[in-house]
Amino acid sequence: MRTSIATVCLSGGLAQKMYAAAEAGFDAIEIFEPDLIAAPQSPEEIRALADRLGLTLDLYQPFRDAEGVDESVFADVLRRAEAKFQLMQRLGIDLMLVCSNVGTATVDDDEVSAGQLRRLGDLAATYDIRLAYEALAWGRFVDDYRRSWRIVELADHPNVGICLDSFHILSRGHDPKQIEEIPAEKIFFLQLADAPALSMDVLSWSRHHRLFPGEGSFALPTFLAHVFRAGYEGPLSLEVFNDTFRQTDPTRTARQAQRSLRWLADRTAELLGEEASRTGGPLPRLPEVAAPEAFDFVEIKASDTSGVEVLLEQLGFDFGGRHRSKQVRLWTWGAARVVCNDVPSASPAPHIAAVGFDVADSDPAAERAARLMAPPVHRRTYAGEQALRAFTSPDGTEVFLSHAEDWAGEFDGGVSSTDGHAVRIDHVNLVQPWHSFDEAVLFYTSVLSLTPQPSQEVAGPAGLVRSQVMSSPAGGVRLPLNLLPSGQLPTDQQGHAQHIALACHDIIGVVTAARERGLRPLEVPGNYYDDLVARFGLAEDLVDTLRDLDLLYDRDADGEYLHCYTETVGEVFFELVERRDRYDGYGAGNAPVRLASQAT
Amino acid sequence: MRTSIATVCLSGGLAQKMYAAAEAGFDAIEIFEPDLIAAPQSPEEIRALADRLGLTLDLYQPFRDAEGVDESVFADVLRRAEAKFQLMQRLGIDLMLVCSNVGTATVDDDEVSAGQLRRLGDLAATYDIRLAYEALAWGRFVDDYRRSWRIVELADHPNVGICLDSFHILSRGHDPKQIEEIPAEKIFFLQLADAPALSMDVLSWSRHHRLFPGEGSFALPTFLAHVFRAGYEGPLSLEVFNDTFRQTDPTRTARQAQRSLRWLADRTAELLGEEASRTGGPLPRLPEVAAPEAFDFVEIKASDTSGVEVLLEQLGFDFGGRHRSKQVRLWTWGAARVVCNDVPSASPAPHIAAVGFDVADSDPAAERAARLMAPPVHRRTYAGEQALRAFTSPDGTEVFLSHAEDWAGEFDGGVSSTDGHAVRIDHVNLVQPWHSFDEAVLFYTSVLSLTPQPSQEVAGPAGLVRSQVMSSPAGGVRLPLNLLPSGQLPTDQQGHAQHIALACHDIIGVVTAARERGLRPLEVPGNYYDDLVARFGLAEDLVDTLRDLDLLYDRDADGEYLHCYTETVGEVFFELVERRDRYDGYGAGNAPVRLASQAT
Repeated sequence: MRTSIATVCLSGGLAQKMYAAAEAGFDAIEIFEPDLIAAPQSPEEIRALADRLGLTLDLYQPFRDAEGVDESVFADVLRRAEAKFQLMQRLGIDLMLVCSNVGTATVDDDEVSAGQLRRLGDLAATYDIRLAYEALAWGRFVDDYRRSWRIVELADHPNVGICLDSFHILSRGHDPKQIEEIPAEKIFFLQLADAPALSMDVLSWSRHHRLFPGEGSFALPTFLAHVFRAGYEGPLSLEVFNDTFRQTDPTRTARQAQRSLRWLADRTAELLGEEASRTGGPLPRLPEVAAPEAFDFVEIKASDTSGVEVLLEQLGFDFGGRHRSKQVRLWTWGAARVVCNDVPSASPAPHIAAVGFDVADSDPAAERAARLMAPPVHRRTYAGEQALRAFTSPDGTEVFLSHAEDWAGEFDGGVSSTDGHAVRIDHVNLVQPWHSFDEAVLFYTSVLSLTPQPSQEVAGPAGLVRSQVMSSPAGGVRLPLNLLPSGQLPTDQQGHAQHIALACHDIIGVVTAARERGLRPLEVPGNYYDDLVARFGLAEDLVDTLRDLDLLYDRDADGEYLHCYTETVGEVFFELVERRDRYDGYGAGNAPVRLASQAT
Repeated sequence: MRTSIATVCLSGGLAQKMYAAAEAGFDAIEIFEPDLIAAPQSPEEIRALADRLGLTLDLYQPFRDAEGVDESVFADVLRRAEAKFQLMQRLGIDLMLVCSNVGTATVDDDEVSAGQLRRLGDLAATYDIRLAYEALAWGRFVDDYRRSWRIVELADHPNVGICLDSFHILSRGHDPKQIEEIPAEKIFFLQLADAPALSMDVLSWSRHHRLFPGEGSFALPTFLAHVFRAGYEGPLSLEVFNDTFRQTDPTRTARQAQRSLRWLADRTAELLGEEASRTGGPLPRLPEVAAPEAFDFVEIKASDTSGVEVLLEQLGFDFGGRHRSKQVRLWTWGAARVVCNDVPSASPAPHIAAVGFDVADSDPAAERAARLMAPPVHRRTYAGEQALRAFTSPDGTEVFLSHAEDWAGEFDGGVSSTDGHAVRIDHVNLVQPWHSFDEAVLFYTSVLSLTPQPSQEVAGPAGLVRSQVMSSPAGGVRLPLNLLPSGQLPTDQQGHAQHIALACHDIIGVVTAARERGLRPLEVPGNYYDDLVARFGLAEDLVDTLRDLDLLYDRDADGEYLHCYTETVGEVFFELVERRDRYDGYGAGNAPVRLASQAT
């Protein structure tokens, strides 16, 4: 499988983009014309740089406003094209993307477009160049790949083929199945992009909001399966216009892009099953690993975590012992494990440094993560200690693939067996900086096989917070990722706190006991309870209990949710939750109240 | 004219929003329910705070899913409503916004909706509360103000009237003229919002992208004139959901909001002409001031501006003398004046600190600015010196309303009379931080009567830059405002440079002479010139000249544009431009090349 990326996906100058693509393991790039025009290097220097980096230059793009024009205009098209063919020769590129006409088309006639493409093909042939014709989703007359294919068929020229782009096809809702009817040798190129489901004009959607496969909501494995069934054997090339990637580190973006293709190839191979061997080249598979269905532990790090330990004790955690060789203490409550790690050099405020996911066999899981280019974490271990497999997630939180039975013996208290009120970690909420939010979705989708749920927005006093839950099929692992308001940086304290939610069966009993141990939950305003009465028509005595305990309440068709929050210590707080019946949410309607209370 | 603002427009907690609204001079607020629910103060405390601040509570909003429902559901609507009426009594609010049903509507029948509103009105009457029914643009059945008015007419209840919201009407393209047919006493409330022209679903557009009047593209003076012609005499209330305002200083946002209403009232009074006295209350007018048609000067400040002075001399500026009492030096070239101000305490890098606009009579212009709450600038003056009128613009740049003849005599060289090549300042490009971009558009629209032109986006190596030109009717003043990529803060150096563009009649001669004086223009890559040939089919010798001089070129149907840039000193650089024929742009197509060259 050859992988390629368009230079427009990455920030920086052209040379910088090429270094990033090569470093991430891409085989090829598409040269986006404005990147070349703005580059100080000559075409020959770019060609030589690509050679040195082991990159091939697979496509020059785009050539616009080529067909469907009056003959007088077409003369100038040929003149423009020839200048570009000469340039491509200097670059050593033999394939040009020709997109369907947006600006100058005046003739809505397949025969005319085909005839003009044929003549362009004749000219291109004299330079040994081939043309890949692509239907833009907003083309003036040609905006559907089935029509662009009809025109290519009519052109009937060996140097004229089609370019397929998943965005232009799926954004319009066009059925990709008919791709299978196109002869493989006429599919000159394939561009891939994902995108979130947005209801906006397709041009703005395309220019600002494309994503890498696995970050959006297009059914790309299905799309790609159709392309392979057609017999396509060319490169898989990413073309992603995205406002964020345009301004973030190109090396990091390129790795994220490569990860997305490896995940996509694996998913497509899974879908094709036995067909896979009969189509395309062999697709590289990833080790199959089921999504974890439980959290193994959460690690909180600080120069001094004692404030967190006071909270843990008040909540109902038992001290589970000290680590035999590190300044680390284990706290357990039923199946919930929290590790407090005092590190003088760490950022001083307590924060979630690592999340362990319960993986029975960590070897294939770690192998999968490595194949997906997750950066490994190395922590010092001593003789007789378990070397845990861990990787750094995009926001810097370390992700451990672990299993408590393998490591709990290193603590002198062992694993507590009191099951408390059958407590377990319900969810871990991680705050994401704006620039790595989409990358995090791909990371957890691909590395841990978690599934993104529909995202929500909640209003806080300092802006809107977008929440994207990643979860395992049975709901044993739930990971809400909170995106800060765009203007906020991760260094802003406001709204930056992360939290650990603990599920129990009797929250009223648990909170009553915790208050007796000195816990002071986050205060909930009285107006909230007045509204609860109006909204849900709850019984007065239930509302009184909720009010006394600062408990929040939510209800939907599937059940009820009672929850409360602790105060924040450093950058961490805890939530206690009780899910009744089949309630599957997170009390999003209460989030504005929580955010406002935390801000006062 | 009573002014009001919905609490949802401002960031912070409810009390903080109320302080901000009062400080900005609002008479009233609308209480947005989630703000009250999340507030720690009781309704009685909020009411007392409003009293102390001199604010009235004009509206409680929103009450949802009220009509068009089955009778079984309506029983619960009445129960919910009564709880809210009791709450409103505690707050002392007698008007509730009832929006058209989005979630629970099942009956698409005006008679049913009217009957249910009438019964809600009966219940409201027992609490002396009135209901303002509003058609949401995305209502399930009722999404047009003409239909909501028909329903209110059918309800025929003294406590049931209509609420008009400019966003819900103009976003759908509904003609506001028929507002004039609604009896004034049935228009219970008026909400105003502007918005940019966006092609996206109306719900997202409304929830994230509303703007204050004068910041978007709705024809709000026309809209408001229809409302006044109907005889409406109630408050003008702003309801603006905007992602940026949700996270920026509420005091500043409230002032911006108040400014928008003062501007809107003035524009509407202008439109109504003699009618104004017969409609509504008297609308406050602003002093009428024509837009300036020339820049008076630009001031560059730094701890040491000598690097800029070297550039000025190379470009062709003449030294115009020292100020008689300050460390300030004047440079002139034709009608272009640049003042260099060495201030040890200033931020050390040279930057544009002030822009003077040529205003023949600065008194009414300054009075207008003051009425629009532009923060005045006070600079120390000595006996016999002109006290210039100046205000701080949203990005911190000081805006002077001045006229060189009044102040140039304070410099020992006087104003140079050499007209050089009839040089003048063509445009001044100011970089805007993300959080004050819309405010800047309103500032220059209202204070200086400049007109926003269609905005453009250009790709740079560190992200997309949005450019919004504000200009005077004859084009004598052009002020491109550049919005940095959303992730960048004004403290980032990247892309933060501002510039002064100087127009001349013979750029080839001017640049040739400047190079002889040692000027080194920003280098333009060779690939750019190869593309110029392909794109425009320019003559080889012209392209050779452009290439030799690092000149950029653009052409449109109206004319040609030749321009080049100096290197950047601190945060400032200069551009030389020659506009041929009626070319009216800024060479936006060349901006990516400029940004890339500046980044290397």
